[in-house]
Amino acid sequence: MKFQILKSEIVSHISYMAGSKNEAVVIDPRRDCETYLETAKEWETKIKYVFETHRNEDYVIGSSELANATGAQVFHGPGLDWAYGEKVDDKQEFYFGSLGIRALHTPGHSPESTSYVLLDSESGNQPIMIFTGDTLFVGDVGRTDFLGPKMTPTMSEKMYHSLFEKILPLGDGTIVFPAHGAGSVCGGKISEREISTVGIEKATNPMLKLTKEQFIATKVAERHQTPPYFKKMEVYNLEGPPLVGTSPTLSPLKPIEFDEKIKKGAYVVDVRAPVAFGGAHIRGSYSLPPSRLSNAGWVLPYDKPVLVVADSVEGADFAAKNLFRIGYDKIEGYLANGLESWYKESHPISKLSLVTVSDLNSLIMAKKGIFILDVRRENEWNEGHIEGSTRIYLGKIEQEVGKLPRDIPIYVICKTGNRSSFGASILLRAGFEQVHNCLGGIDAWKKSGFPLIK
Amino acid sequence: MKFQILKSEIVSHISYMAGSKNEAVVIDPRRDCETYLETAKEWETKIKYVFETHRNEDYVIGSSELANATGAQVFHGPGLDWAYGEKVDDKQEFYFGSLGIRALHTPGHSPESTSYVLLDSESGNQPIMIFTGDTLFVGDVGRTDFLGPKMTPTMSEKMYHSLFEKILPLGDGTIVFPAHGAGSVCGGKISEREISTVGIEKATNPMLKLTKEQFIATKVAERHQTPPYFKKMEVYNLEGPPLVGTSPTLSPLKPIEFDEKIKKGAYVVDVRAPVAFGGAHIRGSYSLPPSRLSNAGWVLPYDKPVLVVADSVEGADFAAKNLFRIGYDKIEGYLANGLESWYKESHPISKLSLVTVSDLNSLIMAKKGIFILDVRRENEWNEGHIEGSTRIYLGKIEQEVGKLPRDIPIYVICKTGNRSSFGASILLRAGFEQVHNCLGGIDAWKKSGFPLIK
Amino acid sequence: MKFQILKSEIVSHISYMAGSKNEAVVIDPRRDCETYLETAKEWETKIKYVFETHRNEDYVIGSSELANATGAQVFHGPGLDWAYGEKVDDKQEFYFGSLGIRALHTPGHSPESTSYVLLDSESGNQPIMIFTGDTLFVGDVGRTDFLGPKMTPTMSEKMYHSLFEKILPLGDGTIVFPAHGAGSVCGGKISEREISTVGIEKATNPMLKLTKEQFIATKVAERHQTPPYFKKMEVYNLEGPPLVGTSPTLSPLKPIEFDEKIKKGAYVVDVRAPVAFGGAHIRGSYSLPPSRLSNAGWVLPYDKPVLVVADSVEGADFAAKNLFRIGYDKIEGYLANGLESWYKESHPISKLSLVTVSDLNSLIMAKKGIFILDVRRENEWNEGHIEGSTRIYLGKIEQEVGKLPRDIPIYVICKTGNRSSFGASILLRAGFEQVHNCLGGIDAWKKSGFPLIK
Amino acid sequence: MKFQILKSEIVSHISYMAGSKNEAVVIDPRRDCETYLETAKEWETKIKYVFETHRNEDYVIGSSELANATGAQVFHGPGLDWAYGEKVDDKQEFYFGSLGIRALHTPGHSPESTSYVLLDSESGNQPIMIFTGDTLFVGDVGRTDFLGPKMTPTMSEKMYHSLFEKILPLGDGTIVFPAHGAGSVCGGKISEREISTVGIEKATNPMLKLTKEQFIATKVAERHQTPPYFKKMEVYNLEGPPLVGTSPTLSPLKPIEFDEKIKKGAYVVDVRAPVAFGGAHIRGSYSLPPSRLSNAGWVLPYDKPVLVVADSVEGADFAAKNLFRIGYDKIEGYLANGLESWYKESHPISKLSLVTVSDLNSLIMAKKGIFILDVRRENEWNEGHIEGSTRIYLGKIEQEVGKLPRDIPIYVICKTGNRSSFGASILLRAGFEQVHNCLGGIDAWKKSGFPLIK
Repeated sequence: MKFQILKSEIVSHISYMAGSKNEAVVIDPRRDCETYLETAKEWETKIKYVFETHRNEDYVIGSSELANATGAQVFHGPGLDWAYGEKVDDKQEFYFGSLGIRALHTPGHSPESTSYVLLDSESGNQPIMIFTGDTLFVGDVGRTDFLGPKMTPTMSEKMYHSLFEKILPLGDGTIVFPAHGAGSVCGGKISEREISTVGIEKATNPMLKLTKEQFIATKVAERHQTPPYFKKMEVYNLEGPPLVGTSPTLSPLKPIEFDEKIKKGAYVVDVRAPVAFGGAHIRGSYSLPPSRLSNAGWVLPYDKPVLVVADSVEGADFAAKNLFRIGYDKIEGYLANGLESWYKESHPISKLSLVTVSDLNSLIMAKKGIFILDVRRENEWNEGHIEGSTRIYLGKIEQEVGKLPRDIPIYVICKTGNRSSFGASILLRAGFEQVHNCLGGIDAWKKSGFPLIK
Repeated sequence: MKFQILKSEIVSHISYMAGSKNEAVVIDPRRDCETYLETAKEWETKIKYVFETHRNEDYVIGSSELANATGAQVFHGPGLDWAYGEKVDDKQEFYFGSLGIRALHTPGHSPESTSYVLLDSESGNQPIMIFTGDTLFVGDVGRTDFLGPKMTPTMSEKMYHSLFEKILPLGDGTIVFPAHGAGSVCGGKISEREISTVGIEKATNPMLKLTKEQFIATKVAERHQTPPYFKKMEVYNLEGPPLVGTSPTLSPLKPIEFDEKIKKGAYVVDVRAPVAFGGAHIRGSYSLPPSRLSNAGWVLPYDKPVLVVADSVEGADFAAKNLFRIGYDKIEGYLANGLESWYKESHPISKLSLVTVSDLNSLIMAKKGIFILDVRRENEWNEGHIEGSTRIYLGKIEQEVGKLPRDIPIYVICKTGNRSSFGASILLRAGFEQVHNCLGGIDAWKKSGFPLIK
Repeated sequence: MKFQILKSEIVSHISYMAGSKNEAVVIDPRRDCETYLETAKEWETKIKYVFETHRNEDYVIGSSELANATGAQVFHGPGLDWAYGEKVDDKQEFYFGSLGIRALHTPGHSPESTSYVLLDSESGNQPIMIFTGDTLFVGDVGRTDFLGPKMTPTMSEKMYHSLFEKILPLGDGTIVFPAHGAGSVCGGKISEREISTVGIEKATNPMLKLTKEQFIATKVAERHQTPPYFKKMEVYNLEGPPLVGTSPTLSPLKPIEFDEKIKKGAYVVDVRAPVAFGGAHIRGSYSLPPSRLSNAGWVLPYDKPVLVVADSVEGADFAAKNLFRIGYDKIEGYLANGLESWYKESHPISKLSLVTVSDLNSLIMAKKGIFILDVRRENEWNEGHIEGSTRIYLGKIEQEVGKLPRDIPIYVICKTGNRSSFGASILLRAGFEQVHNCLGGIDAWKKSGFPLIK
Repeated sequence: MKFQILKSEIVSHISYMAGSKNEAVVIDPRRDCETYLETAKEWETKIKYVFETHRNEDYVIGSSELANATGAQVFHGPGLDWAYGEKVDDKQEFYFGSLGIRALHTPGHSPESTSYVLLDSESGNQPIMIFTGDTLFVGDVGRTDFLGPKMTPTMSEKMYHSLFEKILPLGDGTIVFPAHGAGSVCGGKISEREISTVGIEKATNPMLKLTKEQFIATKVAERHQTPPYFKKMEVYNLEGPPLVGTSPTLSPLKPIEFDEKIKKGAYVVDVRAPVAFGGAHIRGSYSLPPSRLSNAGWVLPYDKPVLVVADSVEGADFAAKNLFRIGYDKIEGYLANGLESWYKESHPISKLSLVTVSDLNSLIMAKKGIFILDVRRENEWNEGHIEGSTRIYLGKIEQEVGKLPRDIPIYVICKTGNRSSFGASILLRAGFEQVHNCLGGIDAWKKSGFPLIK
């Protein structure tokens, strides 16, 4: 048996590939699917089947791309009208080499959510693994709010049944491989560890220790963010995204070419570290350090050209690849030779003031008239925040910019300084003049022993 | 949590690496340990601890090499006098990042065999995985015969206790990662699948369904081969093998240089496919197709230079690396530009007759005076062999060559044609003149519908 | 200045890429053009221009593929009706970064042959290099026979003028980079060395030491082979070959799938070494060791599926890539896991008898009734051949098979044993039963001190 | 003929490797010599000879390292007492495969400077290339000042003879491959182009158009900088540097470990871009952007531990490798996960003020009391500088820090902003408080149309 786990870091999406005797299957492939082709070649296998656990909302599904490249058949659960692939029945089985896949309908996260059990015919068709999609995560379960608040109780109940009547009965020994890891917006408290078993989850996953009523109540009480780009993903993933054949490569643009495109309306994504963005950046650009790239989905339109500023070609490529994974296909180039080429030719630069938590604390102590903008998620905020600070979720800043004061300095803070750099760059774009990014964020604040309130 | 499985194909040895927050551990590293250094770099971690599950008999342990390169501490179980590393107590714990390792003494395979449980402090120190070394395999358990027949019952009993009182109580959900996969000489019937859990093993591993008495009786009845090179490995692994710093690279040798070394006593290992060896080879060379390289341990002395014939530089390197893993450090070069360079300069070549199973069957039907030499293991033989054939285990041929007839043709057969190519090459070296390799072996024989007896 | 030489081994074609300040040009790109894109990315350049020295007859031009991927403009000389690209005037100049290209019409090899001089504006537009296409090689000049014998004197005279009035006047210091290296069928005696200067060529290239009359007479007297596939290349290169987007990847085929495709008319190309082909092969397959792959152009039709037998995935890929370069786009797969998978499933195999030159010499000495078939080129034959042997050029064997005896053994010989393996495989396909391949060929024959006649 | 050019970017050193028929030579290898071993393997060659053109002052010679790894013989010219290798006679020849090397004594840059002519025995031993070391560069000639001002006239005369009586007579067609490219401190005005011929140099190299008297006068008038680390290089290269076996790999250090090492006296090299260094850096660190790494030789002692701050592991490795090439072997680690890990744990950061040339111009216009420190080389300064600015060469700042005012702001400027970042970081280390780095430097100043004086 050949087996490979493939993680896409930024959206924290995990896909899987299993092979046996010149045949292979892929579960939840991503859009830039060359990697599966390479692995298939290395294994000397043909990709026979592609299985989707669900429609997905947070990245562009790669099934049709992969089917196009290989001739594989695509399968997904029933309950939503996919424009491609075939519906699987509950308990339907598929064989490849000496292995098998058994579909298990597990609605809840979405109506057609389906898990797939890997069987080993050489061990009496014993269930070995289960690919749980967004139904069961390591340490958490999937969201049930995507059909809207009215449907959330129903979907939560469905999920409860899927978990307790479909997945847990497979036995403690079944290995659990979900579609997302820590950091995904599809779950709240997913563990850093990405491998688990039904037994480990039963012992440690708090959601599996609840009664049905508690489970539903907990799910209904959850508050998740839904970035605007999710709508695009849902359309793409149901109708089938545009096929591209290969992953994008970026053109190097000279400063003058770069500038022209900006003048014609291109958006600029700057993926350098927050300290570099603070030091100098192109006016109007969004600060999206690599780990925050999926936040682009809150602000970038799909019909406008996008440009990238990075420290290196590799950095620009990384940005392009990750934007492509969430459906941005109009990335027109990157600034050749980096920001140095820009200021060497005397193009103007802007700065973003960087402050430490000590600086911020001193200002607070001195009772200066400042506005502290915390851009973290509600649950982070609830665990502790700076007294006097105001929370606006990162993704909402651009639309709620009118609520913020323009006459006093705004100090943007998050957990470490990356999201706050993005938040601050949104304010700069909106014309705010007294904007500061707090390096180190709440992490450094706590480390310094400064007080938090709940 | 970072996690990586690293398999060394030929000896079917599996090592593991886990990392968290800039710290990592390695379990059972191999000797060519650059790969761990590369992974450590990629993860931005320091290798803090190296754990050995047991002394190992079938490959050179890489702990001291890795400790030398990184400053990591090496640990192993008590019960044998290792000249390096430190002994772990039962239940002793080690922490790296947010993960932990708990040692579990599991003697049986060898007196100091120790398993290591991976704990996740972020999940309440729940046991997540266990690295079982040669105690529990997927579908089988380790050998208990290395201390000799007298000790086998005792060691088998110890293993029973280790399995049933130490490992199984961890719970069905614990993921099992053993030190060997299918094809290893350290187990008999290891599964092709290399990942399992305690629950899956309880459900499917036949050895775990036996009573203690049955277990011991079954182990005592097993018949395993012990290649002569195991002695060298045991010495190396207890005393610490020679440190080399880097993996070997081979010198290209021109035909004339190659020939001179042969004349001075170098051994030649030919790793090309059996059909190429049949077509032409250098007189006296051993046919060791890549998948059979560890069989070199039956015939190659450790104190003589070794030369390689391969189809490509990569093939030669592969041979060198795998011979190095079983302790051969005197590999002096490979034939530059392959066998073509040899015969282009008019150096003499030999051939090995290749026959199909149809050819062999016709000869049998015609009642020709032939000798069929089956070189498979006893358990394979017991499952079916050609009537009238004689079995000598591959590794024993060189010493039992006197028992074979020189006046009638010998047809060497194995399962597919690789081991028989090695066997036939031993006969050619010993001066036999009528030697034939049966391509396809018993696999093709069965596929052709020819009869087997048990 | 960035500069890269890219050689395609089998057709011995060389392309060049130069870059300066985010802009680059490519001269004579090959069809699998990912390599230029990768280099462009590494250099942070856009490919601005693509220059073709001439139509080319021996490989598929990559200009339109590369233009399609990059938006670059394609240029070529006047004199033939290309369906794509633009015509350059003599002395027309192009600039990229601080470098320039000046076109130089150099007809002779073909009517539109054009050389390109690289200028360095930072050294006063000094000519630095000249890309000579098939006009001037290292140690030789291009063929002038492609328009047929009637035109050869005219084309030879044109070439003389191009060389002596266009290229040599650039000065001894100009570095010469031709489109082909040793082994190309586009030249006769190209040097192993692939870099030269006008000065070195004037000193050492025998063709540059001739008077105009001698030059023309020598060119007219040359005898070159023109493989049938050249016709396809000429059509492709004038009209524009099919665009493919990416280089081909091969599907692994199980023996049963492979066999089915053969039965439906697929051709089999076996790229293993001659000794492996001799040991065992699939009946009807062509023996085309990697170095001989372009010889496929003599026997493979363009409208039939092609299959590959190789030692490894890499070997199969190499074959596919090189067949793709000469226009074969219907390569349907390779035998997964090599020939072993074939004979393990008891599919029938054939052999090709392999003999050494000593064997052959003994047969000649013994005055056995044998037929020695020498498949080398005329000029090789003229330098020495075995008494009593018959020469048929390799590429002509299939059509002249009727001239060969079927009742006596045929010993096929070439220089080393690769071309003779191909020749012998053609005879086997044609039903000849007594065919032998002479390993080592004339090289080994000479090395053994056996006599040659001229 | 196989041929490879290998450039080490930062010191702009170029080494060469040529091979033929399983044998190869290397000219002027660098210390991290794995690359030659890899190429040798790919070519299936043994490295037979290593040739040094001269002792070298600006990087650690790799000959003994390479000889140690391969058994190759090392050769160099006479005139200095090397503790390793062998002296070559003028016109001494060496053969490898079908190629040859002829030594040519060409003193001038150093007493034992020797050039090596590559001969092709298949072209009548025609000189094909010459490896000119630091004697002839593309567009310039080597320095003649290393033996001190007294010896400069003599050495310059020797160089004149070497050039005009040894190298130029080889003929215009000889290809010229020097030991350094643009940016090397071993020459003044080396061209961006790295390939040339004797003919091109005769036509374009201004030094080759001078009379002997002019030549000597010009060389005597040159003013070069000699970084302190050159002394170390000279000792290393004459006596043989410490052998290391493999290139260095860096340990990731957690912030607390990093901080401890700083407190014990480690030096910190920050290789991030100037804008990132400006944004935030660790107090006391040197700003050495990748392109300026060799400037470390002005300030880093050889006996103290060195630490690296970079944006990525690759960036840290790049720094380590380049510091290793100039002899720094005590690089103890890099800051794991970059500067973010530092400030997240609330370790203090410093900033360096970044200004644009517009900002600077406004200050000048406003007649503010500022000090403009230009850190470029004398020849750059002579071509144009800002009125009122003061020049101190970058390498001299640390020792001349006493000459600078502490009471008014200092604006450090270079050509683009990299060297000025290093210069400014030296001032910050020395306790200056009003330090500014001018982004874009004189390049941007000119582009903005601001005035320069000469």
